[in-house]
Amino acid sequence: MILQIIEKKKNKQELTKDEIKYAIDEYIAGNIEDYQMSSLLMAILLNGMTDKETIDLTDAMLCSGDIIDLSIIKGIKVDKHSTGGVGDKTTLVLAPLVASCGLKVAKMSGRSLGHTGGTIDKLESIANFQTEMNMERFINQVDQIGLALISQTQNIVPADKKIYSLRDVTGTVNSIPLIASSIMSKKIASGADIILIDVKVGTGALVKTLESALKLSKTLIMIGNYYNKKVKCVITNMDQPLGCAIGNGLEVIESIDTLKGHGPKDLTELVLNLSAHLISSAKNIPFETSLKEATSNLNNGNAYLKFKEMVKAQNGDINNIDLAENVISVKSKTTGFVKQIDALKIGEIAKKLGAGRLTKKDKIDHGVGIVLSKKVGDYVLQDEELLKIYVRNKDIMVNDILDCFEISESLGNLKPLIYEVVEKI
Amino acid sequence: MILQIIEKKKNKQELTKDEIKYAIDEYIAGNIEDYQMSSLLMAILLNGMTDKETIDLTDAMLCSGDIIDLSIIKGIKVDKHSTGGVGDKTTLVLAPLVASCGLKVAKMSGRSLGHTGGTIDKLESIANFQTEMNMERFINQVDQIGLALISQTQNIVPADKKIYSLRDVTGTVNSIPLIASSIMSKKIASGADIILIDVKVGTGALVKTLESALKLSKTLIMIGNYYNKKVKCVITNMDQPLGCAIGNGLEVIESIDTLKGHGPKDLTELVLNLSAHLISSAKNIPFETSLKEATSNLNNGNAYLKFKEMVKAQNGDINNIDLAENVISVKSKTTGFVKQIDALKIGEIAKKLGAGRLTKKDKIDHGVGIVLSKKVGDYVLQDEELLKIYVRNKDIMVNDILDCFEISESLGNLKPLIYEVVEKI
Repeated sequence: MILQIIEKKKNKQELTKDEIKYAIDEYIAGNIEDYQMSSLLMAILLNGMTDKETIDLTDAMLCSGDIIDLSIIKGIKVDKHSTGGVGDKTTLVLAPLVASCGLKVAKMSGRSLGHTGGTIDKLESIANFQTEMNMERFINQVDQIGLALISQTQNIVPADKKIYSLRDVTGTVNSIPLIASSIMSKKIASGADIILIDVKVGTGALVKTLESALKLSKTLIMIGNYYNKKVKCVITNMDQPLGCAIGNGLEVIESIDTLKGHGPKDLTELVLNLSAHLISSAKNIPFETSLKEATSNLNNGNAYLKFKEMVKAQNGDINNIDLAENVISVKSKTTGFVKQIDALKIGEIAKKLGAGRLTKKDKIDHGVGIVLSKKVGDYVLQDEELLKIYVRNKDIMVNDILDCFEISESLGNLKPLIYEVVEKI
Repeated sequence: MILQIIEKKKNKQELTKDEIKYAIDEYIAGNIEDYQMSSLLMAILLNGMTDKETIDLTDAMLCSGDIIDLSIIKGIKVDKHSTGGVGDKTTLVLAPLVASCGLKVAKMSGRSLGHTGGTIDKLESIANFQTEMNMERFINQVDQIGLALISQTQNIVPADKKIYSLRDVTGTVNSIPLIASSIMSKKIASGADIILIDVKVGTGALVKTLESALKLSKTLIMIGNYYNKKVKCVITNMDQPLGCAIGNGLEVIESIDTLKGHGPKDLTELVLNLSAHLISSAKNIPFETSLKEATSNLNNGNAYLKFKEMVKAQNGDINNIDLAENVISVKSKTTGFVKQIDALKIGEIAKKLGAGRLTKKDKIDHGVGIVLSKKVGDYVLQDEELLKIYVRNKDIMVNDILDCFEISESLGNLKPLIYEVVEKI
């Protein structure tokens, strides 16, 4: 049976709902081997899937686990997802900000994967911060303070966990139907009414071209329509790291700075923009009004108060954030404009420092990482500081890090931070 | 590294010789997982390989094991290969026939696979026939009597064994570069000077269209050219079984009949044609002269004598061939022309009777099988015998077998037995 399914996809025939469900269910049950699933995944990656197949795949994944019911929470439940980037701490700022504006954020997040970070690992750099709790407590917390950020439970789309691990080691990650069904099955299972997806595009992202990002966005919205969920996609730049900090504790500190109104320009701009889109959808008010509300709540300290409220509710000690003791200043070898900072390479280096996992079993070091002193567009003098490295031992890769920077006499055209908002297919 | 190789092939970039060698060597060494190799194989199947890649793949496979040196055998060493079919006992007749004409046949053959039979399983239905021997004895036998048919040793292209098993269960069999490199690595390793390949095309074959068969033929010849080997391909029909017998012992008996000059018309024609091509290449004489020589040696009993000589040299008892005791006659339900006999389905049924293996560990029953009383083009009356089934128990699938036959009032155009001879790219 699985051989016939592989044959069909290989020959560019449309798979039926039953065939897709069979492949997913039997793979999870252990009756289809990894080497058969990887062959099917590669055939899907190369031959694509129709919209109907993509919905059927999402549905088969969704049905592999629990679907959370958030209906007892009063108000509009919103969720936000990023397709992954380097230095992307948006959730840490956006979630308390929109909660402070009255939206309900019952968010389950992931851990770091590949060169990209994960919200849960970041939060765990706050001493004692609890990222696991039972559903009852989770829902109660959201109902009471409007916000909870926890680790995705084992039984949310277990099919995605098994398939994602396999995709990661078989070259079958960058397929639009596979990415879209993976994201949307988890978002639908998490129960929110309104879903905002930050589709990252660029060297540090899963998706490398604007064209693919647009196609992915439309696929995500198409799946959302099927489940009667309001899905909005914002396509944003991931050529350089977002903000300045890369590494778990460092990113929490930068998030707190941003919540206090003095974060890096790009991070602040992105958070405000995404928050305004969510508020506008949830309250059915114009984008400009929403943006004003968001900006005001960032500046008046309400967003930061909400963040502290959440940390307290989840037992965290906000005054105790893990940071490595050794700080090394890396200086520029030349004078000029910072033309490019390779987000992918920086992410890989941060991972090697200990900020991410090389294998699934690795423990993360929450204190290590990189803080950029210069971003794309900045002018730097020879021997001026380009960045700081936070390390445990001093065995660092200064030249590798310098290789991530392109410094040039002229700057050329800078790419925008936000490319496009996609709301319909 | 393997991920980068998968990425390249996925993105339709040409792999280097080193990358291909790395993938094969590390897979054999167990450092690349089955699920990674199957993903790569599917990417190769869908995106193809250039001629250079196909040669590099053949070479990497070839170098995974021993290369036989036949140089101490006097005369021209020839080899013949079939891409596999149902009822294909050509080797059993052709090998002694061309040996009786002075060619040297040092042939290593395979076992049955999927719905297709294997020469070694067929020979083992002769009591005590020895299909395994050491290289020295093998080479001596060919040198002395001109002919030996043995089982492929474990160390001939071990990479192909491992990869073929994986392809079989991951839907990655029907790829021209994969088929061609699998065949040619084994043929080159076997050491013959002249190689004839019977490229089967049709419902019962691996290759379903004449266009693919032509492409495969040219790829085989292209690889042969690289190794300075004379390779000739004959594209032949495999819509219906070849000859009348399907099943190991039954096929040996039909081969003996053919060697005695009274075999089925299609089998005899094919054997004579292929033999003439080999003789013509080996002796550098015209095809017509070669065909006369082959026909003469089939009719004058020399070919059969050579077969008996081989059976004796390999300890077999030609008077003791395994056959099942129960013979069931299956009658036609209608009157008309036999328009089609589905070779694939018949092959599958013979396998289920016990003539082939359902899993690798299954033991073959050499005595069971099917003998067709009617072939495509024949006229059959209602209640006239269509075929005989040889079984151990009587639990047979008469209706399934009748479903393999299409009997119709008119016949339409019959397809030729031999489509095309391909000698150059």
